[in-house]
Amino acid sequence: MAGKTVTGGAAPGMAARNLNDAAAGKAGLGRVDLIGAGPGDPELLTLRALRLLQQADVVVHDRLVSDEVMACVPAHVRRIPVGKAAGFHPVPQDEINALLVELGLAGLTVARLKGGDPTIFGRGGEEFEAVIRAGIPCDYVPGITAAQGAAASARFPLTHRGLATGLRHVTGHRARDAALDLDWASLADPQTTLAVYMGAANMAEIAAELIAHGMPADLPVLAVSQASTPQERRLRATLSGIAAALAAEPLPAPVLFIVGHVAALAEDGALPQGLYRPEWRLVAHG
Amino acid sequence: MAGKTVTGGAAPGMAARNLNDAAAGKAGLGRVDLIGAGPGDPELLTLRALRLLQQADVVVHDRLVSDEVMACVPAHVRRIPVGKAAGFHPVPQDEINALLVELGLAGLTVARLKGGDPTIFGRGGEEFEAVIRAGIPCDYVPGITAAQGAAASARFPLTHRGLATGLRHVTGHRARDAALDLDWASLADPQTTLAVYMGAANMAEIAAELIAHGMPADLPVLAVSQASTPQERRLRATLSGIAAALAAEPLPAPVLFIVGHVAALAEDGALPQGLYRPEWRLVAHG
Repeated sequence: MAGKTVTGGAAPGMAARNLNDAAAGKAGLGRVDLIGAGPGDPELLTLRALRLLQQADVVVHDRLVSDEVMACVPAHVRRIPVGKAAGFHPVPQDEINALLVELGLAGLTVARLKGGDPTIFGRGGEEFEAVIRAGIPCDYVPGITAAQGAAASARFPLTHRGLATGLRHVTGHRARDAALDLDWASLADPQTTLAVYMGAANMAEIAAELIAHGMPADLPVLAVSQASTPQERRLRATLSGIAAALAAEPLPAPVLFIVGHVAALAEDGALPQGLYRPEWRLVAHG
Repeated sequence: MAGKTVTGGAAPGMAARNLNDAAAGKAGLGRVDLIGAGPGDPELLTLRALRLLQQADVVVHDRLVSDEVMACVPAHVRRIPVGKAAGFHPVPQDEINALLVELGLAGLTVARLKGGDPTIFGRGGEEFEAVIRAGIPCDYVPGITAAQGAAASARFPLTHRGLATGLRHVTGHRARDAALDLDWASLADPQTTLAVYMGAANMAEIAAELIAHGMPADLPVLAVSQASTPQERRLRATLSGIAAALAAEPLPAPVLFIVGHVAALAEDGALPQGLYRPEWRLVAHG
């Protein structure tokens, strides 16, 4: 592959040739935007996400999208839940893909609303491919990840001089009976903050493997449930103790784990200045 | 460290005891918010970021914050540039910290606006510590990272089934004459998308080390300059060829590298439907 420079935005004199253009030329065709709903707090939506929710004909949403974010969708807009949550998959991915294509071909402006960011986990890329292959224009709209939301509400940095030089997002989920598809040797880097999504069911195994591959047993871990929402709860323990602590005091899904030295900086008291405030709904409805 | 559950938001009956409360009790004290400006497109600001910019008395901003984002700051708000960009550090970090403290102690509402997300790179944690230690209330406000912005504008997922099971953010920057502080063996995982920030000057060494530690030489790499802005430019090459390609056709800073199989999915044509549109400024000014 040779180096190839391309220019974003409308480049004068360059012919527009891609699937999105071909699609836009058809009369009556809709469009699909894969929109990041962020971690839950509606004020963490981007301006673009809010605009597209307000312009949509239909919102196709996961169960992980908070009620507060759904309250930003105008009342007249049709809502189709396609619940995806750990242990609860009522609509298979293929059917979600087919639904998006069907709605787009019907000429509708579709807001596909996904927890966090649609380019990180959550199979957004598969939905994008299905929609684009059907000739329907499609864009990704980024969202704040749960790790970013958790860091903001517990007031700690995900990287910090002397504690973490980088940040890594992985999933701790696995298909039934399958082995966890994780490169333990690579993951066992105590200088990198590890954000583990969908790992609550497997945290004992994840912690044991990380320790077996060299992570300190006393490395701090913060478990965060429903980050950035009024229901946010946190549990802090060591890497060797997190699974037992969570078993003793289970947290409601979704639970994110922050593994690394920065977790020691997370606030562990009640947050009377908690970031979420009811009046922000007014802003979100803007 | 024992497991310890804490509750976010205002927990009834729990006394409010933290630095922020102590600070809020002082008459005339201001506050500082460390706000993520996102990658450049003003429509990728969060609703909270926009609200805080509009409520601020003073905005302290990095050079990496785009003109389009700065256009969202009301005209009457004082602006203090504290330029931080590769090779250009006019205000040392200690002085930025001291400035934020001085402004907060003077009773001002300070918006500290940083490119991307203030909890990921950019030394936000050091600014937070300085402000909180001075007794001034301080919060982080998340922002969309450059990697997320680049994925959205070139329309590719950062994780994707069969191509990438995770995402990792690292910096390729180093202090003068120092070795790059990176764990190459851990980084050389071709199933993890690697987002390299501030690495343009060192990409030849980074690529060589990754290949020496087992990354395929023909792994695709996307270099993205000024992601999500009208000036966005991209260059795609292989891991072994990226440094030469960039030397032949340098891109303006800041340049982000996306290393991994997903980079092959990035659009490499002109983007006539490029996400940035001038009319969005109206929304951002909302």
